[in-house]
Amino acid sequence: MRLSRYFLPILKEDPKEAEIVSHRLMLRAGMIRQQSAGIYSWLPLGKRVLDKVSAIVREEQNRAGALEILMPTIQSADLWIESGRYNDYGQEMLRIRDRHDRSLLYGPTAEEMVTDIFRSHVRSYRDLPLNLYHLQWKFRDEVRPRFGVMRSREFLMKDAYSFDLDYEGARAAYNRMFVAYLRTFSRFGLQPIPMRAETGPIGGDLSHEFIILADTGESAVYCDKALLDLPIPGEDTDFTADLTPIFDAWTGPYAATDDMHDPAAFEAVPEERRVSARGIEIGHIFYFGTKYSEPMKAMVTNQDGEMVPVHMGSYGIGPSRVVAAIIEASHDDAGIIWPKSVAPFDLGLVNLKPGDAATDEIAEGLTVRLEKAGLEVLYDDVDARAGAKFATMDLIGLPTQLVVGPRGAASGEVEVKDRATGAKETLSLDEAVNRLVHEKA
Amino acid sequence: MRLSRYFLPILKEDPKEAEIVSHRLMLRAGMIRQQSAGIYSWLPLGKRVLDKVSAIVREEQNRAGALEILMPTIQSADLWIESGRYNDYGQEMLRIRDRHDRSLLYGPTAEEMVTDIFRSHVRSYRDLPLNLYHLQWKFRDEVRPRFGVMRSREFLMKDAYSFDLDYEGARAAYNRMFVAYLRTFSRFGLQPIPMRAETGPIGGDLSHEFIILADTGESAVYCDKALLDLPIPGEDTDFTADLTPIFDAWTGPYAATDDMHDPAAFEAVPEERRVSARGIEIGHIFYFGTKYSEPMKAMVTNQDGEMVPVHMGSYGIGPSRVVAAIIEASHDDAGIIWPKSVAPFDLGLVNLKPGDAATDEIAEGLTVRLEKAGLEVLYDDVDARAGAKFATMDLIGLPTQLVVGPRGAASGEVEVKDRATGAKETLSLDEAVNRLVHEKA
Repeated sequence: MRLSRYFLPILKEDPKEAEIVSHRLMLRAGMIRQQSAGIYSWLPLGKRVLDKVSAIVREEQNRAGALEILMPTIQSADLWIESGRYNDYGQEMLRIRDRHDRSLLYGPTAEEMVTDIFRSHVRSYRDLPLNLYHLQWKFRDEVRPRFGVMRSREFLMKDAYSFDLDYEGARAAYNRMFVAYLRTFSRFGLQPIPMRAETGPIGGDLSHEFIILADTGESAVYCDKALLDLPIPGEDTDFTADLTPIFDAWTGPYAATDDMHDPAAFEAVPEERRVSARGIEIGHIFYFGTKYSEPMKAMVTNQDGEMVPVHMGSYGIGPSRVVAAIIEASHDDAGIIWPKSVAPFDLGLVNLKPGDAATDEIAEGLTVRLEKAGLEVLYDDVDARAGAKFATMDLIGLPTQLVVGPRGAASGEVEVKDRATGAKETLSLDEAVNRLVHEKA
Repeated sequence: MRLSRYFLPILKEDPKEAEIVSHRLMLRAGMIRQQSAGIYSWLPLGKRVLDKVSAIVREEQNRAGALEILMPTIQSADLWIESGRYNDYGQEMLRIRDRHDRSLLYGPTAEEMVTDIFRSHVRSYRDLPLNLYHLQWKFRDEVRPRFGVMRSREFLMKDAYSFDLDYEGARAAYNRMFVAYLRTFSRFGLQPIPMRAETGPIGGDLSHEFIILADTGESAVYCDKALLDLPIPGEDTDFTADLTPIFDAWTGPYAATDDMHDPAAFEAVPEERRVSARGIEIGHIFYFGTKYSEPMKAMVTNQDGEMVPVHMGSYGIGPSRVVAAIIEASHDDAGIIWPKSVAPFDLGLVNLKPGDAATDEIAEGLTVRLEKAGLEVLYDDVDARAGAKFATMDLIGLPTQLVVGPRGAASGEVEVKDRATGAKETLSLDEAVNRLVHEKA
């Protein structure tokens, strides 16, 4: 992609409204634009990251056996009246009346709707286990939306819903999502730590938050260092097997956020293993049994031919929030440092002298070669000062920068910079291409 | 994907509420479920088709130089007051008040919002041309939603918005989208016919609808047969070149829907070339000049340093509606016949005797081989009557069916059925795999 044909509205000044680093950097890098309080557009660079995050979420949901559907954003109030949550939910629910004066709402979550789908079509334990998920925009009418897409009103959420015959089945479903979440967050380059959590308005009696560590995190967290050293379950994890050992390994050591913190229990952790840090919540899973299936009559026949309410759980990740969390965990004074897995482009190629025939030829030739090899290249062909070009590349944080100037064009060399380490090397064109293609594979 | 682990809630009876064939078949094939009037969930099979349609739309938008963004579903009323459309739009607009009593709305279209993005960031003719598009859910509060996802209230729309310095630039942008639409619809296996159209609430003075022919189409259309024989612009079309010749070739011959029909002009077409048929609108493009840029002050400096309002156009395709339109154009009494480009799976593999060791081995081995080769296989491993299995496969309309039974397992043969023609052949396993892999490539 040529920068001259791209839409990358970089801001030179720090926006006043941004209170946290991810909000500031997303605005400055032209990733998002606020349209009204807590409601954002995703501009081309931001959209690419959001798509990559969403793709990883999907891959890991599918791997764990969940099936993708897509429920609408607008729901009928009737379902929420049936479950008893319509009045409970309070002012965070965006309530709407249509032209026929029927009560609708913009879904903040979809337990009711998915339970309605389930009860309409599933009759027997033979059709279980079932896990249906979707990625869809949600709306929560926060009193004070802030922190950019970290706490916005309209936000993207992956919500999965599991249906099982009994508690044991539901716990196995919970473990599958638990493991899928460890894998998902690890693929974002993040260090996930599951922590026992309150269930809040979703309800139920078992729940874990997934916290990632970031110096600029919103809350204090306390944990046993053992959790930071545990291996992430591999791609070859058998999701049909019993995953209890993995669950136990990750929930045994001490871990708590501020509000659940038990200083006495933390003191019991050997001192050299006590970690006090800052964290951000980026996932939340719930087992809530028959909380929705009983009032909404989502029943199946069991092996004995009796009708029983299904046991359910729900599992949320907010990809729009994750984009901000990754930046909180990975940035420096110059800007964002994208992990390769979610970078909007694999590399930026800076032409220091657009219009110079030799430099253009080398830079354009490199772009074509790299794109043919499957790499995503942002080619800066814009006429601007070198300093401004480098600042933009550092700000938008692509993993690798290639720099081509008239001198390199003459000698057939290119400078390669690693954004994360700052390390620079001068390589021949072939060496540079080979290395980048190799790293991508 | 094993059918025993999939969620495919086939309906045996014709649903009473379905007035048109696509609505009936989408419900029967377990693709969608109505959640409230004109609001649908997309179940796994439907979601796969919607994703394939959307992917083709994206590819052709990108090829034509448009850049993908994502604007929110909820918009502030302020922007619509500024453009003058807030009161004009009438009851089809879903109006909302948030907890602070601010006026919001669920976007039925996004001319105002994208103009706001433009004016915030673009200052100079040097940044033009620019075309920003997104795929996002829209809401139009129809008085009588009907025909399933063909005329739903919540629907997916790809809307693109072009920005140019002057009329000539805007016409070039219009032609690029015109050509992109011909290519897009052709890739769905449809026969697109552009027809001059009214501009309606979008406004402006140049507009074309894209109609596809389908016996069960909603309106009568009249055209010169020459349009059915025109070649679709190829993948190698140069979108930076002048596309006027393509535009002229496709807009010269007579073509009109019922409400724009001019019988006298139609009579002037040689009789053997007159086509009277049924059609469905699946795309609409508009040039509307400075209708939004003037009131909203979206100005750029021109070559002479003067501030001038940009010339704009907008370009819509509804992927959710397209899914239904493809079915209207491609079905028979037994069910849907998916074009290969948008089929939810490449093939269905029917195991006639699950539990029989030899048959299971052959069927599962075939599934693994085909999936490794990159084909998407729906493997029917469910214990059911052969007749029911065949009926389900015909209903869901995958392009190819492979049938493995005990007899074929013994002889190492498989029956291959082409869903569109009904032709059946018995092939060796290797022959069947080679043919399918070859066809997919």
